[in-house]
Amino acid sequence: MILKNTSEIDIVRANSTKINDVDFENLTFGSVFTDHMLVCDFKDGKWEKPVIKPYEPFLIDPSAKVFHYGQAIFEGMKAYKDENDDVWLFRPDENFHRFNKSAIRMAMPEVTEEIFIDGLKTIIDLERDWVKKGDGNSLYIRPFMIAIGSGVIANPSTQYRFMIILSPARSYFAGEVKVIIADHYSRAANGGIGAAKAAGNYAGQFYPTKLANEKGFQQVIWTDDATHTKLEEAGTMNVFVRINDTLITAPISDRILDGITRKSLIDIAKRDGIKIEERSVLVDELLTAAKNGSLKEIFGAGTAAVVSPIVGFSCQDVYYELPKIENSFANDIKDKLTKIQYKQAEDTFGWMVKI
Amino acid sequence: MILKNTSEIDIVRANSTKINDVDFENLTFGSVFTDHMLVCDFKDGKWEKPVIKPYEPFLIDPSAKVFHYGQAIFEGMKAYKDENDDVWLFRPDENFHRFNKSAIRMAMPEVTEEIFIDGLKTIIDLERDWVKKGDGNSLYIRPFMIAIGSGVIANPSTQYRFMIILSPARSYFAGEVKVIIADHYSRAANGGIGAAKAAGNYAGQFYPTKLANEKGFQQVIWTDDATHTKLEEAGTMNVFVRINDTLITAPISDRILDGITRKSLIDIAKRDGIKIEERSVLVDELLTAAKNGSLKEIFGAGTAAVVSPIVGFSCQDVYYELPKIENSFANDIKDKLTKIQYKQAEDTFGWMVKI
Ligand SMILES: Cc1ncc(COP(=O)(O)O)c(C=O)c1O
Ligand SMILES: Cc1ncc(COP(=O)(O)O)c(C=O)c1O
Repeated sequence: MILKNTSEIDIVRANSTKINDVDFENLTFGSVFTDHMLVCDFKDGKWEKPVIKPYEPFLIDPSAKVFHYGQAIFEGMKAYKDENDDVWLFRPDENFHRFNKSAIRMAMPEVTEEIFIDGLKTIIDLERDWVKKGDGNSLYIRPFMIAIGSGVIANPSTQYRFMIILSPARSYFAGEVKVIIADHYSRAANGGIGAAKAAGNYAGQFYPTKLANEKGFQQVIWTDDATHTKLEEAGTMNVFVRINDTLITAPISDRILDGITRKSLIDIAKRDGIKIEERSVLVDELLTAAKNGSLKEIFGAGTAAVVSPIVGFSCQDVYYELPKIENSFANDIKDKLTKIQYKQAEDTFGWMVKI
Repeated sequence: MILKNTSEIDIVRANSTKINDVDFENLTFGSVFTDHMLVCDFKDGKWEKPVIKPYEPFLIDPSAKVFHYGQAIFEGMKAYKDENDDVWLFRPDENFHRFNKSAIRMAMPEVTEEIFIDGLKTIIDLERDWVKKGDGNSLYIRPFMIAIGSGVIANPSTQYRFMIILSPARSYFAGEVKVIIADHYSRAANGGIGAAKAAGNYAGQFYPTKLANEKGFQQVIWTDDATHTKLEEAGTMNVFVRINDTLITAPISDRILDGITRKSLIDIAKRDGIKIEERSVLVDELLTAAKNGSLKEIFGAGTAAVVSPIVGFSCQDVYYELPKIENSFANDIKDKLTKIQYKQAEDTFGWMVKI
């Protein structure tokens, strides 16, 4: 995939850089932002010219629809720097298409490739010093769109703002991850917005996750809301289960985000002859496998954490510890994916896009 | 209920008023705001002193959690002016409690009575000229809270902003309302956030409602997401069905907003000997009743529209027209409720609170 160069973006440079104040060894995920942001407004039925300008707060009306009706979507992606100081994006077309799918579901306007892809390219090029080399280092990229039209009536806005902000990152999760299998709360409805990367999907998880945290668990693995018998996904990760030597992950539905890490891991597994099944994983099946020893691993997969091994889970208040194993599929597949992302292994799929 | 007077709110008055520019005969719902707004920030684990100041846009960081994770809740209520120029609120304690229930579900801090109730009293008192007399006129009140803490990591904010904005209103819906009974999309999950007045619940309805609009229907009546066999509620209204002489409305659950209009209508019905049942209404039951003529009325109930009669509905692409009847329960019960609200009938329940 070739990114088009464009002169269709205005750039207003910051007078100075904050980069020297940043301790890149001690970054809290998503808390430090680079010097610039991209802003592009939608008005009178069309997108205006994008502008890259200094990162700063902006003015918004108290009645803006994003505050009242939650029209807000986002993407999460990363840029990586290789040993030659080249900067790479991982499958940005996937994020672009998913963003527009989210936009449609939330009755928001789709963005053009010029705005999303060329916007990415231009701002990341400008901020390339913020992309650090070395394992686990990346520039986390947050494209998002919010409804800025005013009015406290529950209907779609006519005005929107698309933005890209950038945050230097190390790895997302620290420590051991224990999860609770949801048996009361849920994340998404059939026919709902679970498959969209909509802001509203996340706040709804905070309270049940807080309850889990209080019991010593870091995350919740959501189940189908009707019966709580099928595993779905975690807060910001799709979930893989390894039973014997087969990886299993829930199929994509309108309740589950079509994760790019998930689909990439599936492709890698297929390429490398790891047995992989996309099908519902029943909670019962998980418990049986845990009890008879065939359950080897559970891990989450998502851009922020890449692959996040889970050490144990609680189901109906019983705690199941996962075995410590050699030859972890999670480690192996994470290694394969990150080697592609950092350009240390051949990109057999053509996933990487150079800035 | 007696509202406490308070000196705990700072007031910064607007230099001039916009009121003379407003055409009160031709208001679009929720589009015109009064001169002032109330703002109260939550920081370092506590609420700061509320301030009432000129209505205006405010600055917010692009990484504010409300934009990315949808931590945002609101209330909708109205102030009414009686013939003596006294201004009244309808059951504000109900909105206050529901707001805090929403806050808990969205992992946001609860507001105090001083902030919510005294805040309401103080700002509405200041804006009492904006409350117009006469049937259908009111001041629509929008208390809301958003997460203003920054950071693109999916966890609860530590900083919040509570605001109250005010918008003069006439009646909400115009024209005939036809609805579609949802058979694919849904509004809320079991164990989800449907019972909270969370921003994210609304944007999710825009796309299916747009599809309904394109077919000539104004609203969608949501059904349970698992089976689509039970009626739940509409976009911003609870739903009542009248079969023969019995009113039926779905019971409150974690998928349905506990509407204050709904519960008030139930109380009025009980007081006046109208048969009322709080139980699931099956779609099948509705169709059978429509076919055999026992289905007399369907109406929505909510603060904005008060009572909104529905003239027909579509189910599985078949359109059912409701009969035009004398002695409509919808009209009767709306009349009884609004007479209480405008202080034209005795407030037997003690619902009205004077500003
Ligand atoms: C709900 C949810 N599931 C799964 C994922 C993983 O998707 P991806 O691999 O594209 O980052 C995300 C994204 O962070 C997410 O928000
Ligand atoms: C989803 C939903 N249902 C029902 C209602 C009606 O509630 P209330 O009567 O308290 O306005 C509302 C509020 O507007 C709502 O947003």
